Amino acid sequence: LILGFDFMIINEKRFVSNFENLAQIGKTLDGGVHRPTFSVAHQEARVWFKNVCIQSGLEFRIDNAGNHIARLNCGLPNAPTLLLGSHLDSVPNGGKFDGALGLIAALEVLLSFKDAAIPLSVHVEAIDFTDEEGTLIGLLGSSAMGGALKAEDLLNPRGGRDNLVNGFHNSGLNPEKILNAKRNQTSFIGYLELHIEQGPILQNNHADIGIVSSIVGICSYHINFIGRADHAGTTSMDSRYDAAQGASAFTLESRKLVLQSYPYCVVNIGQMEFTPGAFNIIPELVVVSLEFRAPEEKILKHLEVALLELALECGAKYNLGVEISSLGEHSPAIMSSDFQNAFEIASKALDLKTLRLASGAGHDAQAISKICPAGMIFVPSINGSSHSSKEYTKMSDCINGANVLLHTLHILLGRNGS
Amino acid sequence: LILGFDFMIINEKRFVSNFENLAQIGKTLDGGVHRPTFSVAHQEARVWFKNVCIQSGLEFRIDNAGNHIARLNCGLPNAPTLLLGSHLDSVPNGGKFDGALGLIAALEVLLSFKDAAIPLSVHVEAIDFTDEEGTLIGLLGSSAMGGALKAEDLLNPRGGRDNLVNGFHNSGLNPEKILNAKRNQTSFIGYLELHIEQGPILQNNHADIGIVSSIVGICSYHINFIGRADHAGTTSMDSRYDAAQGASAFTLESRKLVLQSYPYCVVNIGQMEFTPGAFNIIPELVVVSLEFRAPEEKILKHLEVALLELALECGAKYNLGVEISSLGEHSPAIMSSDFQNAFEIASKALDLKTLRLASGAGHDAQAISKICPAGMIFVPSINGSSHSSKEYTKMSDCINGANVLLHTLHILLGRNGS
Repeated sequence: LILGFDFMIINEKRFVSNFENLAQIGKTLDGGVHRPTFSVAHQEARVWFKNVCIQSGLEFRIDNAGNHIARLNCGLPNAPTLLLGSHLDSVPNGGKFDGALGLIAALEVLLSFKDAAIPLSVHVEAIDFTDEEGTLIGLLGSSAMGGALKAEDLLNPRGGRDNLVNGFHNSGLNPEKILNAKRNQTSFIGYLELHIEQGPILQNNHADIGIVSSIVGICSYHINFIGRADHAGTTSMDSRYDAAQGASAFTLESRKLVLQSYPYCVVNIGQMEFTPGAFNIIPELVVVSLEFRAPEEKILKHLEVALLELALECGAKYNLGVEISSLGEHSPAIMSSDFQNAFEIASKALDLKTLRLASGAGHDAQAISKICPAGMIFVPSINGSSHSSKEYTKMSDCINGANVLLHTLHILLGRNGS
Repeated sequence: LILGFDFMIINEKRFVSNFENLAQIGKTLDGGVHRPTFSVAHQEARVWFKNVCIQSGLEFRIDNAGNHIARLNCGLPNAPTLLLGSHLDSVPNGGKFDGALGLIAALEVLLSFKDAAIPLSVHVEAIDFTDEEGTLIGLLGSSAMGGALKAEDLLNPRGGRDNLVNGFHNSGLNPEKILNAKRNQTSFIGYLELHIEQGPILQNNHADIGIVSSIVGICSYHINFIGRADHAGTTSMDSRYDAAQGASAFTLESRKLVLQSYPYCVVNIGQMEFTPGAFNIIPELVVVSLEFRAPEEKILKHLEVALLELALECGAKYNLGVEISSLGEHSPAIMSSDFQNAFEIASKALDLKTLRLASGAGHDAQAISKICPAGMIFVPSINGSSHSSKEYTKMSDCINGANVLLHTLHILLGRNGS
């Protein structure tokens, strides 16, 4: 294979047909999909994928974490593997592009290579990872495969232990064996994923392809501001221990902090829970749900210290107690610069305008990057909408993304000696 | 009767005994009482009061609002009536002084006059008002008697229509006849009530008796701050419509406003409810529970305008929609200056230090003041605690309060010709 204008393109008709057939499974009235992990619709989508793979003559297996793995076998037993993938689960009442586009594109890449009957020196896999969206844990399948998932993560998952155990059993899997899904990292050349952007940056910059430089790290916390429940009529304003004041000050100040001093970072106060929560009683406890993200580990840690100090300051200002509890962390992941360059060359060859950007959303590439080089590209999301039925990407952009993915493999496998 | 040192005192032994017997009914493990309106313990307390009144030879009746009315009849059919009273219901897991002290003191005043066999030119009543605390509506019995209760108030009470209807039926009362409890205002000389302060002002000022100048008016609102639910990772900080920012700004600014410009007023944000309330989604809706109080109608209305304007400003600052819904209002009540002076004279005669203060809590005197002059005195609450089992008032202070009430009647009835 020679770099240049001599490149393959996907079978558009098959790609669009597969995408639209998949979008029927779990379809909602407003045109999105509802496929939470291990729901009936999610299981149905996975069976559909399995059948398409087998009917197309690909190897197919399901690992201990429930990851559904299609494989284009190159015929050399000791050859390394190039991984592609994304996910078929969705958030509740989500969109039909998130995850699905990436998996259909990965499948299309395998089928295009198969159609072309080009001899390859590596195996290529298209993987449907289990529970990317976090119905149970988040990045469950990719973390298990990458070895980052720990036994303790399975004991108290945010979706509930019973749902995890029952979901695995109902899928014919043994939840006690999830960690066995870990694979030998020396066998992988790398991992590539196509995804919708889920933000407005590509659209705003009139770019066709986003080349992801890094995926943000995410920390979650509960911050408890602790005051005293007193009569809201008889307690003077200056003698109150009002937990709402500390929580509110923290909400405003954390936004200001990030806006002023942490470009490319975000912070969200997504929930507050008041105790006792009555009109006429001063709140004695407000539990704040805090999440923040940063593109680099160093910045994430710096932001973490700054936000937790800020929480203590806001509590002290209103004479409140402050309790802090960590609810988990996903490390940021730097994407392979080799892969970024390959995406760039492939996009240029296809006459598509690129933009390098960090991903503010988490992705399976983040977990797989722990065991091999990883790369991601984005295609534009109209108005940046995602995690809702408003999620939309033009089919021409979806096709562009799949072609860039295919051509990037073409480039990489050419380098690797096919 | 002659003003001076020639005055009656209460029967301390009987007063303390009645108080302690009543405190056994609905007693909680931590020494408070649990007697929500129409609960078994509340009904039991009312039966106990009825039996004590009847056994003491007082007239007794129950009106259409369930108010339990003991009457010392002066024997003159067309004589006017002087009202005393308070309430036997409590907040959930409340204290044994709130309401109970006032009613036992009122009863003791009737019994002391009866014991002394002094001919009176007025009837004197001791009334246990229904639902002062608001399990169903708040100031239900006194508002019904004073004529302020409206038919629409009974249709959607904050405690639920079913609970109101069932509670009245279970007490042998007809909920359709509640408004018939309204009484003819021309027959009343006035209303006097003893209560615990429920705040720390008397203790802090080493005062024995608080003479209430006014009872605050109270307004309740729901303020909805309306933003947009977006992905908390992919939506940049400066392009968010974050409902939490508006709600938090309002919480901080409303406190500042009252501290700076509204002395003797209070504001409370007792609850916020977030939608959708997830770590990784920007809140699209925060519903704020707002309550504020002011000692005068004019100030209450001024504060209301200022706070609602502030809510709109806080919403606009963060590009949020704001929806405002009123949840009801109790007007402020000015206490009779004649009664305040009589309390002052009575306290001085008993060598007790007085302090004039506004009541930050609502009381039945507020509702009754709509139909006749009303007066209230407070005795000190240790550390200002109330609406909890920590509520405590020294028995010597309770006795002082009852003696001031008795002596004030002595003065007033002397003036009125007994």
